[in-house]
Amino acid sequence: MNRLIEMRPGEQNPPIFHCKINNERIMEKIVIIGGDAAGMTAASKIRRTDKKCEITVFEKGEHTSYAACGIPYFVAGYVDKKRHLIARTPEEFAEKQRIRVNIRHEAIKIDRERKEVEVIDLKTKKSLRIPYDKLLIATGASPVVPHVDGIKAKGVFTVSNLTDAQRIHHFIQKQKPKKAVVVGGGYIGLEMAEALLERDAAVSLIDMSPQVMNTMDEDMAGVIQKYMKKEGVKLYLNEGLKKIEKNEKGEAIAVVTDKHTLQADLVILGIGIKPNSGLAKDAGLKLGEKEAILVDKTMRTSDEFIWAAGDCATSYHLVKEKPVSIALGTVANKHGLIAGTNMSGADEEFPGVIGTAITKFKAMEIARTGLSEKEAAELNIPVKTIVITSKTKAGYYPGSEEITVKLVAEESSLRLLGGQIVGFAGSGKRIDTLAAAITAKLTARDLAFMDLSYAPPFSPVWDPVQIAARQLI
Amino acid sequence: MNRLIEMRPGEQNPPIFHCKINNERIMEKIVIIGGDAAGMTAASKIRRTDKKCEITVFEKGEHTSYAACGIPYFVAGYVDKKRHLIARTPEEFAEKQRIRVNIRHEAIKIDRERKEVEVIDLKTKKSLRIPYDKLLIATGASPVVPHVDGIKAKGVFTVSNLTDAQRIHHFIQKQKPKKAVVVGGGYIGLEMAEALLERDAAVSLIDMSPQVMNTMDEDMAGVIQKYMKKEGVKLYLNEGLKKIEKNEKGEAIAVVTDKHTLQADLVILGIGIKPNSGLAKDAGLKLGEKEAILVDKTMRTSDEFIWAAGDCATSYHLVKEKPVSIALGTVANKHGLIAGTNMSGADEEFPGVIGTAITKFKAMEIARTGLSEKEAAELNIPVKTIVITSKTKAGYYPGSEEITVKLVAEESSLRLLGGQIVGFAGSGKRIDTLAAAITAKLTARDLAFMDLSYAPPFSPVWDPVQIAARQLI
Repeated sequence: MNRLIEMRPGEQNPPIFHCKINNERIMEKIVIIGGDAAGMTAASKIRRTDKKCEITVFEKGEHTSYAACGIPYFVAGYVDKKRHLIARTPEEFAEKQRIRVNIRHEAIKIDRERKEVEVIDLKTKKSLRIPYDKLLIATGASPVVPHVDGIKAKGVFTVSNLTDAQRIHHFIQKQKPKKAVVVGGGYIGLEMAEALLERDAAVSLIDMSPQVMNTMDEDMAGVIQKYMKKEGVKLYLNEGLKKIEKNEKGEAIAVVTDKHTLQADLVILGIGIKPNSGLAKDAGLKLGEKEAILVDKTMRTSDEFIWAAGDCATSYHLVKEKPVSIALGTVANKHGLIAGTNMSGADEEFPGVIGTAITKFKAMEIARTGLSEKEAAELNIPVKTIVITSKTKAGYYPGSEEITVKLVAEESSLRLLGGQIVGFAGSGKRIDTLAAAITAKLTARDLAFMDLSYAPPFSPVWDPVQIAARQLI
Repeated sequence: MNRLIEMRPGEQNPPIFHCKINNERIMEKIVIIGGDAAGMTAASKIRRTDKKCEITVFEKGEHTSYAACGIPYFVAGYVDKKRHLIARTPEEFAEKQRIRVNIRHEAIKIDRERKEVEVIDLKTKKSLRIPYDKLLIATGASPVVPHVDGIKAKGVFTVSNLTDAQRIHHFIQKQKPKKAVVVGGGYIGLEMAEALLERDAAVSLIDMSPQVMNTMDEDMAGVIQKYMKKEGVKLYLNEGLKKIEKNEKGEAIAVVTDKHTLQADLVILGIGIKPNSGLAKDAGLKLGEKEAILVDKTMRTSDEFIWAAGDCATSYHLVKEKPVSIALGTVANKHGLIAGTNMSGADEEFPGVIGTAITKFKAMEIARTGLSEKEAAELNIPVKTIVITSKTKAGYYPGSEEITVKLVAEESSLRLLGGQIVGFAGSGKRIDTLAAAITAKLTARDLAFMDLSYAPPFSPVWDPVQIAARQLI
């Protein structure tokens, strides 16, 4: 707390960092690297708890607190303006919460001994050393970009931040691509496939694995694949990306797999993401699964003055009973809240995750929680599973549609370990009932006889998740 | 097992009851009074377990296994044919499962000492004595009909079974009522109000209490009332039904309350229901809340050879920790399954209910579970409560609509005791997440940090139920 940087009031560029001396004590200096969900949630929480401390955020990109999960819907045209995806701008953080957010500033080094972060102002290229009392690393994750020929061709995009979103949006408006290839059949892949169909492109999707949605089991993925084909997506499974061909203008013209050459004037990469943990690694902090920064339940890293939160940090998995790397907006928000709580002096634990996730492809809702059957196999947990197909409403009620539910339960006890749901309107959010049951370590029998809601416009008499549970027992 | 009735093969009317003697043993005689959800679920379960026993059902009305909950939607015209509301006809039960269902047969007495039921064939008026080894009472519940002048006028209906449904349907088609009055603002009242608006009637609704939906708290009911008024229903709260005026043809023309005279050419009574427990009471079986037949968790009554299930029987309330009377189709089905399981020799318990229910009025979804604030007060349980308003999807996502969530938690521990949800598309079924959490005795904190699903088309980053939980803690 004894290192200060001189105040420079009246400067034309607002000072990166400033610190006031108060007669009684020096205010605590909180530094946050990363200005999205986790970082800004923590910043806000700290400010709500501690009106005096100094909170400074460094964000490499141009935006704060944006809804990365909304990008495909912005590209699809469902959301009009990019602005709608931004919860709060740097100016708003400054005005409303006295949180100083410096965009276009990249942290390049953490000096744990001196408790300083080295930051580059990407505009001026100047380097700054910023002291901290407490540091939060909330650097997120980056899309995996395969090292293949042509990967930098024009018309090839990752989908990671608002700048990507805007680039894709402009590209579509200007080039009106007719043939899009999506590489990767995960959440981003499916959501972007929908978005591109909306923009009148023919869509092919390749994935090197034998199924889409690898976080789900093959039987459930089969239901999704059938629907995707029906909706016009050409699927090329078991096919790896080999290269991207480009024309003399450097524009992508085809995606080459180990089996096909697919014409393409737009290529979306949705292969996966990796935690941005380089800074932490270089600083000698402990890492966990996928090299995510290892944290305890208070979100503290192996350095007592440094916390980590969001996609760059691990979460404790309540079913696997170990730290895992799960990159999701909802988890990032919870991480941020817990990190912020603890950084402002309280002591609160993040209970953990169970891998709940939801998405949709056109009218089909897709959700999962807990362990898939294959995850259970990897962990050598003997399980019983069931897949049932039922209806979202009473069969006779208009708009009653198909829903498929899979349950995974521990073989001996029938304790619920996981669930997967694929179906039409009203299907997906039923995963939360399973998530609650799994969190509470309930059994299939508990679920089967649970007092869930029923009325013809909402459910069959036995909710589909209960039909599955009944068949399991 | 030693009382037999002679077989009468070849009779023109199918025998009411028959019994075969098998060389080794006499088959068990199962008699079930009531052929709807609970009775027929039990019958089916027994047949699946025991291929040999004799199962005979007596149903006072004309239909079996019909979806009483679907009646308002049939009246509204959403469901085309009455047939769609019938899961299985008596003929199908006979053919597919060798379950003999005798419709238009009313049980009038249970002779526990002789183990016989006295039954009247309502067509021939003949009385029959039917022996049983095991008896299930699944007589349902009946609508409360107030004893006021004019209650039997033409155009005044209760909504209890398919015969009612058809009568109302025919009345509407023939008379084209212009002014309908619904008496009672509970589930049936709201659903029928919607149905009658669909049939182009002006709808007034009276309720003697200060709010609609008495199973919810006044603050939540207020949200519903505002919407009902907006949708054109005239609400007369704090007004009791005094009489129904009729014309010289005996047709209802007005509903008179203690404050108003409301013109009416159609009157729907949705005041409440009472368990049909007269038979059981006369036979000296123990009764519970609202005179429902008291059963243990195996659905057995105070007579070891008699079980009861469905609207006529009690359920154990997991939060109130005592038997209660809750009349709902989903509970009746569970009762029937458990009773059937135990009547065929197994030993299974029904864990209980927490009072989960859901309905809708036009676009508004309405759901509740556990204890309301007023129920907690009646039980002298100190609680903390919260009401929040949020969105059903990410704020920027098209079709994101308002949802209001109320949570009731034990003051000291913040253990969740109850929840209420009112909102538009996608709101209602979120009650199941709360139901699971309450069943598992989780706290508001457990819920706040639970790994629930998030994607922009489904939820804000923090699900509304979690926003409520966070505010509570």
